[in-house]
Amino acid sequence: MTKDTGTSRRGFLKAGLIAGGATVVGATPALAAPKGDPAILDMQPWTNQLGDGVDARPYGTPSQFEAHVRRRNVAWLTASPISSVNFTPLHDLDGVITPNGLCFERHHGGIAEVDPSKYRLMIHGLVEKDLVFTLEDLKRFPRVNRAHFLECAANSGMEWRGAQLNGCQFTHGMIHNVMYTGVPLKTLLNEAGLKPKAKWLLPEGADSAGMTRSVPIEKALDDCLVAFAMNGEALRPEQGYPVRLVVPGWEGNMWVKWLRRIEVGDEPWHHREETSKYTDLFENGKARRFTWEMDAKSVITNPSPQAPITHGKGHTVLTGVAWSGRGTISEVHVTLDGGRNWRQARIDGPSWDKSMHRFYCEFDWDGSPLLLQSRAVDSTGYVQPTKDELRAVRGENSIYHNNGIQTWHVRENGEAENVEIS
Amino acid sequence: MTKDTGTSRRGFLKAGLIAGGATVVGATPALAAPKGDPAILDMQPWTNQLGDGVDARPYGTPSQFEAHVRRRNVAWLTASPISSVNFTPLHDLDGVITPNGLCFERHHGGIAEVDPSKYRLMIHGLVEKDLVFTLEDLKRFPRVNRAHFLECAANSGMEWRGAQLNGCQFTHGMIHNVMYTGVPLKTLLNEAGLKPKAKWLLPEGADSAGMTRSVPIEKALDDCLVAFAMNGEALRPEQGYPVRLVVPGWEGNMWVKWLRRIEVGDEPWHHREETSKYTDLFENGKARRFTWEMDAKSVITNPSPQAPITHGKGHTVLTGVAWSGRGTISEVHVTLDGGRNWRQARIDGPSWDKSMHRFYCEFDWDGSPLLLQSRAVDSTGYVQPTKDELRAVRGENSIYHNNGIQTWHVRENGEAENVEIS
Repeated sequence: MTKDTGTSRRGFLKAGLIAGGATVVGATPALAAPKGDPAILDMQPWTNQLGDGVDARPYGTPSQFEAHVRRRNVAWLTASPISSVNFTPLHDLDGVITPNGLCFERHHGGIAEVDPSKYRLMIHGLVEKDLVFTLEDLKRFPRVNRAHFLECAANSGMEWRGAQLNGCQFTHGMIHNVMYTGVPLKTLLNEAGLKPKAKWLLPEGADSAGMTRSVPIEKALDDCLVAFAMNGEALRPEQGYPVRLVVPGWEGNMWVKWLRRIEVGDEPWHHREETSKYTDLFENGKARRFTWEMDAKSVITNPSPQAPITHGKGHTVLTGVAWSGRGTISEVHVTLDGGRNWRQARIDGPSWDKSMHRFYCEFDWDGSPLLLQSRAVDSTGYVQPTKDELRAVRGENSIYHNNGIQTWHVRENGEAENVEIS
Repeated sequence: MTKDTGTSRRGFLKAGLIAGGATVVGATPALAAPKGDPAILDMQPWTNQLGDGVDARPYGTPSQFEAHVRRRNVAWLTASPISSVNFTPLHDLDGVITPNGLCFERHHGGIAEVDPSKYRLMIHGLVEKDLVFTLEDLKRFPRVNRAHFLECAANSGMEWRGAQLNGCQFTHGMIHNVMYTGVPLKTLLNEAGLKPKAKWLLPEGADSAGMTRSVPIEKALDDCLVAFAMNGEALRPEQGYPVRLVVPGWEGNMWVKWLRRIEVGDEPWHHREETSKYTDLFENGKARRFTWEMDAKSVITNPSPQAPITHGKGHTVLTGVAWSGRGTISEVHVTLDGGRNWRQARIDGPSWDKSMHRFYCEFDWDGSPLLLQSRAVDSTGYVQPTKDELRAVRGENSIYHNNGIQTWHVRENGEAENVEIS
């Protein structure tokens, strides 16, 4: 990947590079593969030798040929990797489930290695009775299973100043989508008994950073989960093992990991992570705060800078992901020519509330340059805006909540780069 | 786990151990946890020290405290671990997704370590044109995403002779449930062009065992997939990397891994894996063959022999999984008293076609012995039978297709064992 802070590519295409020559095809393409040569099947060494047995890997790992598929951090982004972020390799994935080993990480004091036998969760404050739960206690309440995306509010944050980073892993990879198992937070709050003045919660993490955020009681009683499993197995350490808060559709910073305490109060706490951070500074010097919901957004993952077209002209599968913190995705539109013509993408796979959706658009590439964009429409009717539309309202001081339309420029050789057009 | 071949526990409870004293509760329980002692929160070392940063694990792994959660093989079952099986730890999982690292393995010549750049898939025989695809070729066709269970036909096979193995990992763990991404097999067959006499396919694996099975053309054109991703990422080596066949609802043996060849013919091949193996020998000496579909089945995963009740009396979460090769699961019934009283379990999470379903039944345990069973009903109305009902039809020579109702006996101390009652 390229850090390109000196020369933004924003607007460099204003003069109007014309992308074209792509038509969507319904039928499958004629392939350039070798025809019916059985000899190649006999030249493969793995057909002639025994492999590892069933005792070799009690917990399995990816193929040695997939070693490039990994979370990546960028050393220049933060002073230390202990309080930093890495990125989900969206361009290497398909479907809507992010495998646990590839879910991006964000932590503020490193990964807490919590011993589950010593784990405790306390609920106190404006409740009828203070409670302390063990992990086993939590597993005695009725559980539910829900898939939700978790997106860092700073995802795409570098792009406020124009196209900066090459690769959707870096521009959009602070997101993952996981099926959680857990207990509704409402169940635990009811167990403690909320007092009439209870209006806000302060969940707190057990890591050395002691992350806290103020959460309004309405959200807590709606769809928040106290989760202990992800994609079928126990939470991963970097995702809050053994227990994290799930706050569907809201910015990832609020999904407190290593959850050890929930204080119930009558007003928000205005802690660091909701004052100096996670607020949006406008041009007039005022700042939005409590901008919890993640607006509808999408990105094309293939082709993209890390996943160029390598097969030349002809049938090409374009794919990407879309999500909304306010519901489901009802439509995704794709353009191959920088917005002159839009077509509807095919959404395939589960369409869950506040969860990632997978879209595809198959087309027949004639080898001429492309300007690829996707535009999500959610179940409220909200349409993903352009970055310039966002800037017109929010100015250019922002770090968070950039859900603008992403553009990839695909060259004649199939390589792609991050650009902006206007 | 116990190998208990000498003394079967089948029928040992015929005299009528009376399980009882359990009532389902609607409200949450009073918990025996320590109340409101914040001191414990300050005694946790991970709150006072920095942990690993975001550069420590490019591909993440489970917590050190989850090392017991793993696939297990049993050394006595086969002559060699190279042609053997290990088992999904169902009792350690929740929800409906089996994480890739814990999907049971079955291979006949060890794990083929296929180089994707040298991978080829040939389609030949009764087709208009023979075709050889590279992996990149396959990824140029329109893809779909579908979640399906894969169950070995021999799952629960030891139990035909009565309760043998302790632990649902061993009695029912030759199953996993995965979200696949791939190309419909129909698409590739249409690309090759089926000749009028084409009635059967012979998919073949590229491992040293060269697995083959005869598949009727109707199934191939219905819902089979040529899959290259599982739960979002590339297939795992032991699951056929880079390409496997997905044959929804049909026995796992047919889901050919490391798929390298599909021959199209006009009759079945009667190869080893569908004659000497994967047939069901009846009492009269005749054998069923081509028993492809996996009938509706369920098992309680918690409590179970590997997951006893450790919290004593009071509120208890019973959970398990159910599936059918013929559609969805419409109901799961649970009994706590060996079949005297049945109640309807709560199905939670996705209800996909030919995919695992998760069920729960919360109850208030009074500490007396339990005889736990679950019974699945699928969308065709089929009701999971008892093992004795199966034996009455099929005799006791069978190895495969045991979908009988499983019983766990839970003792007063919370420990559980595999038993049969009749």
